[in-house]
Amino acid sequence: MSQANAEGEATGRSRAADPTRVEGHEAACYRFRPEDHGWEGVERKAYAEAAAGRHFAGIERQVIVGHHSGHPSMQLRYFEIAPGGHSCLEKHRHEHLVIGARGVGRVIVGHEVREVGEKDALYIGPDTPHQFVNTGATPFGFFCIVAADRDRPRDLDPEEHAAIDRNPQARALVRRGPAESI
Amino acid sequence: MSQANAEGEATGRSRAADPTRVEGHEAACYRFRPEDHGWEGVERKAYAEAAAGRHFAGIERQVIVGHHSGHPSMQLRYFEIAPGGHSCLEKHRHEHLVIGARGVGRVIVGHEVREVGEKDALYIGPDTPHQFVNTGATPFGFFCIVAADRDRPRDLDPEEHAAIDRNPQARALVRRGPAESI
Repeated sequence: MSQANAEGEATGRSRAADPTRVEGHEAACYRFRPEDHGWEGVERKAYAEAAAGRHFAGIERQVIVGHHSGHPSMQLRYFEIAPGGHSCLEKHRHEHLVIGARGVGRVIVGHEVREVGEKDALYIGPDTPHQFVNTGATPFGFFCIVAADRDRPRDLDPEEHAAIDRNPQARALVRRGPAESI
Repeated sequence: MSQANAEGEATGRSRAADPTRVEGHEAACYRFRPEDHGWEGVERKAYAEAAAGRHFAGIERQVIVGHHSGHPSMQLRYFEIAPGGHSCLEKHRHEHLVIGARGVGRVIVGHEVREVGEKDALYIGPDTPHQFVNTGATPFGFFCIVAADRDRPRDLDPEEHAAIDRNPQARALVRRGPAESI
């Protein structure tokens, strides 16, 4: 049996084949692998699958908890953005909890700019525009926790774009696609 | 206005006084402070408040997201266990997402024992017995994400205690209180 969440990714992978499982319980352990900043038993995927047709660059995603750990109500993902890369400029009803894990990145939240380094934490509430950008020379990685049952990202309204443009810092950082060039 | 969640902690702290806020949005940034492994604007508390009368030792808690970031549906907490310390042996309906952040600890999950080091991830599903123990010589710290609306921890059933005792590793690690000495 296979299910798909709002991002269209398969979540029904066989648990019998999962060496990370804890016997008799809906529980799992994922050991960190420093040599490639990955987790045992977790697949490394390009971001393309989740955001086809949208404007992003140089992102990899690992769904650590949520791809085959029973039916968790929350998912733990790890995103890594290469130098020069960025996530989509977007908003949605569901919340993000973010924890910096590797390197330093910059993020537009609402119409402000914040820096996210290792162990810095960020709460992005409902309908808050956001975009992660790596302006540095090394990979920028972060954990992002979301509800398993969540809505699809949406584009910003014209007034949200305008608020970003009124802040010189945000205006310099924002990465818009051709359809978003207002 | 003040609210209290399942752990009895105040969540209604004034947001106007919060330097971590993002203007115009339910969003907040909490900068990590390496010198004391804390976060700017986040209070460091003994675990006692949350677990009065229960069996634990040497734990500190910081509620990073959830104490005053609007009304997030998830909370991000950081727990630190001193050498020799441990959390309560407990279970509950709500889930835990755990990410190792500092040092190395051991954890009973169900009736198995796992090690949690930096960036190792752990999913603890509904009604899974668990206990975190620091058997090392340095602090063991981890992030723990939970739903804001959650049930109170409960003691284990006799058969769950027995399953732990049948596993020599778990039996050697478990820390039971006087009332739990079966």
